[in-house]
Amino acid sequence: MTTPAPANGNPWDELPLRDELRGQSPYGAPQLDVPVRLNTNENPYPLPEALVERIAERVREAARDLNRYPDRDAVQLRTELARYLTRTTGHEVGAAHVWAANGSNEVLQQLLQTFGGPGRTAIGFEPSYSMHALIARGTGTGWISGPRNEDFTIDVAAARKSIAEHRPGVVFITSPNNPTGTAVDAAAVVELYDAAQAAGPSMVVVDEAYGEFSHSPSLLPLIEGRRHLVLSRTMSKAFGAAGLRLGYFAADPAVVDAVQLVRLPYHLSSVTQATALAALEHTDTLLGYVDRLKSERDRLVAGLRELGYDVTDSDANFVQFGRFADSHTAWRRILDRGVLVRDNGVPGWLRVSAGTPQENDAFLDAVRELKKEHDA
Amino acid sequence: MTTPAPANGNPWDELPLRDELRGQSPYGAPQLDVPVRLNTNENPYPLPEALVERIAERVREAARDLNRYPDRDAVQLRTELARYLTRTTGHEVGAAHVWAANGSNEVLQQLLQTFGGPGRTAIGFEPSYSMHALIARGTGTGWISGPRNEDFTIDVAAARKSIAEHRPGVVFITSPNNPTGTAVDAAAVVELYDAAQAAGPSMVVVDEAYGEFSHSPSLLPLIEGRRHLVLSRTMSKAFGAAGLRLGYFAADPAVVDAVQLVRLPYHLSSVTQATALAALEHTDTLLGYVDRLKSERDRLVAGLRELGYDVTDSDANFVQFGRFADSHTAWRRILDRGVLVRDNGVPGWLRVSAGTPQENDAFLDAVRELKKEHDA
Repeated sequence: MTTPAPANGNPWDELPLRDELRGQSPYGAPQLDVPVRLNTNENPYPLPEALVERIAERVREAARDLNRYPDRDAVQLRTELARYLTRTTGHEVGAAHVWAANGSNEVLQQLLQTFGGPGRTAIGFEPSYSMHALIARGTGTGWISGPRNEDFTIDVAAARKSIAEHRPGVVFITSPNNPTGTAVDAAAVVELYDAAQAAGPSMVVVDEAYGEFSHSPSLLPLIEGRRHLVLSRTMSKAFGAAGLRLGYFAADPAVVDAVQLVRLPYHLSSVTQATALAALEHTDTLLGYVDRLKSERDRLVAGLRELGYDVTDSDANFVQFGRFADSHTAWRRILDRGVLVRDNGVPGWLRVSAGTPQENDAFLDAVRELKKEHDA
Repeated sequence: MTTPAPANGNPWDELPLRDELRGQSPYGAPQLDVPVRLNTNENPYPLPEALVERIAERVREAARDLNRYPDRDAVQLRTELARYLTRTTGHEVGAAHVWAANGSNEVLQQLLQTFGGPGRTAIGFEPSYSMHALIARGTGTGWISGPRNEDFTIDVAAARKSIAEHRPGVVFITSPNNPTGTAVDAAAVVELYDAAQAAGPSMVVVDEAYGEFSHSPSLLPLIEGRRHLVLSRTMSKAFGAAGLRLGYFAADPAVVDAVQLVRLPYHLSSVTQATALAALEHTDTLLGYVDRLKSERDRLVAGLRELGYDVTDSDANFVQFGRFADSHTAWRRILDRGVLVRDNGVPGWLRVSAGTPQENDAFLDAVRELKKEHDA
């Protein structure tokens, strides 16, 4: 990133790295300066000015105590997150069920440090959120790439078989799935959970980062009576706060207690807690943006299908479309038209985030031209 | 933390925890509500009001882009941290030498994920900062407790022998050491570094969290020509910003590149970056508070010695004092007088953070009475 690579390798090759890291590259989407960036599933709507002011106000207040460590247990924040979950899903949870960290990545890392780690494995059904495998590697947890159907839904029978065979410590179910877009139905989650309990017992982590955008209700009520089920969420997407890095999970209180054994003490800063609390005060406005994005997402799905593209059903704020003989070339040609989408490495497919109506128009124009060229 | 423990154990005992975590407890000092809290080495001086305003201003600006991911590489922040190091140590470093994360705990965790991990070990000379061992455990790195002399200085000959014997992946040297207080001299660090290179090579991490409070200059210049030497720092203490959670390290740029393989992408939020940048604008004022704390620390050392206590030489913003036949009882009796100090589990010794002059007076009064009782 900062050092020129030696002629024969990466700059870090001469360091005493862990063997598993040799030959790897850092994760991250290319950050390119183009007019329309629809590649990282960011919410295109800036926070409303009233919320920006409220953040400044709450952070000012927090800054007056900045010489002191933050509330290590983030009790107020967890209380408000629980209230939000209860209100939006109808399933009642309290602070004792909720834990928060710096982005859902850190949430997942803490769960893998607690329930995975050396000598254990985790399974995910791929293609899915690629950080699951990377965080597994980072925590010394073996990774098993489980199967999906041709249409990217989970092949529940095959998945159950994989779970029974590998007896993983952690099972990841991403719903809605990233980068493909489709939600997993509750019955499938229960089947996989039961298979995981018979095999392990294993922890089952439902990654609902895009939950608020789904046509289906949250899977949160499934935690009731399922002590090994964890539902993870983020404020990055629905709250329009990717820059805040606030992820959280809801589960049986014993799971919250267990991650205390591995969480870094005082991991969540006072300014993060203050900013997240301010955003939670403005939930209704932010969920209004979610509604706009859901209809824009549906417009993208319809528009792409009208143009003759294959489109995976989407419950998220992004859409997977194809098929391309060479998806990287297609990505490049869309980029040439000023629109950055994501090549997630799923052969034949690309992913576009739902932007503002103007951004989505620009994207639809670009893929319309691409199609014309191709048909010409 | 939140669930009543079952009659026969911890609430998490029935979960499929990693074996290494069974029987462990979460790290963290007791958070008690007493008039004088001198137990966590916080800086007692609140940030000046001008800085509080500047933080609100910079965070307001950052909040306008909060829907976007933060700068993944935190380039501006690393540039300013490098400028600070260069200016205060006289040793020139640039952004390429510096990496930042959520507290030095996350910095150390990233280093252990990169250079430690399953099948490797790390060594520290104890008593020292207990998070080194805990983060090692959390990353699956074996922990070796290395020796110290009776006066808490590092027994260099014995330490070299341990390094040669165990060939650890990571060697921790805490200078000034926590909880004992004394800085390690550069010659000793070089000897240990050379031993680690002969044995490994291993990475040597000098944890200089309390560096700004030392009577000796920073060990930063030692990174020159020593590719496996890392110097870690924090804004928690000298910058009076424990609530901010901003740790950083300086090393050869290849080390910065290497930790990119394990860092969680976008780990450092926009609000954290904005707040840290604001604090760095006010460095001179904050270092003025450091000077006050250094003389208060020296006053505590002298005052305690005058009262007949044994005191370990201190280069930090805290002082280790003793000896007590039963340090926990002594801790309790000081607490009964309204002053919370820290029992770090070093038999016979307690640790007190340098507070404001008034807080330190209250502490000295408390230990004077304790002494009288004892002598009576």
